[in-house]
Amino acid sequence: MMDIMTSETTTFPASTAAADAMVAEARFNADGLLACIAQQHDTGEVLMMAWMNEDALRETLRTGRVCYWSRSRGKLWRKGESSGQEQHLKDLRLDCDGDTVLALVDQTGVACHTGRRSCFYKAPRGEVLANITEPEIAPEDLYGR
Amino acid sequence: MMDIMTSETTTFPASTAAADAMVAEARFNADGLLACIAQQHDTGEVLMMAWMNEDALRETLRTGRVCYWSRSRGKLWRKGESSGQEQHLKDLRLDCDGDTVLALVDQTGVACHTGRRSCFYKAPRGEVLANITEPEIAPEDLYGR
Repeated sequence: MMDIMTSETTTFPASTAAADAMVAEARFNADGLLACIAQQHDTGEVLMMAWMNEDALRETLRTGRVCYWSRSRGKLWRKGESSGQEQHLKDLRLDCDGDTVLALVDQTGVACHTGRRSCFYKAPRGEVLANITEPEIAPEDLYGR
Repeated sequence: MMDIMTSETTTFPASTAAADAMVAEARFNADGLLACIAQQHDTGEVLMMAWMNEDALRETLRTGRVCYWSRSRGKLWRKGESSGQEQHLKDLRLDCDGDTVLALVDQTGVACHTGRRSCFYKAPRGEVLANITEPEIAPEDLYGR
């Protein structure tokens, strides 16, 4: 079994040839997007899921900093550019059918716009959907600067 | 920081009230689907990403076995029903904007139809996109029975 804590990673920037090969094997959806899951490389926490178009994928591979495509803003979203909470890339792995990538990252601070480490915090507990983690940073301290 | 190895989980079936609350907070896309990331609950491996409609989400919460919606087959896909490689649910966590869930699971055998533990196995290495893991089971042994 592969263990995320010990599995090999690589260094970035990736070569142009490897980036071209990943773009060629990627299957972007009808909107031209791939799903991207961000996971903290050493603890294994799943931090967030967002989207990449080809430009975002190429920029991520070239710079080693995760860049998404913001569907709401309709532009490239360099994670951390407004919040300071950057994602430094340790590995980028395309899945078997080419429509999703897993980014192993070193997350500065928190990933979630609510100030939580991870976006995945609402879970069934008894009779309710509970918030199972609390914000570590106030959102106004992330975006109010 | 939350550590997936030690964070609390729950038991399933979830209550009907909690399932209703999760469905109410979920934001299904234009095709009526949520993205679902499956992660092995103890090692942290990200295994796969697939899709759930409301029926699949409710069945997963009710049975404690992960059920997806197969976009290619157009029907509910009870993970493991043809391969035997089931996903037993430890927790199900909705994200901040309600369009993705993280399923913490105990995966029987392998998650990927190629016979690999994880679907995420193509990564840039030098000049190529390399297969960084090998199949643990031959696909014909998964589906040929």
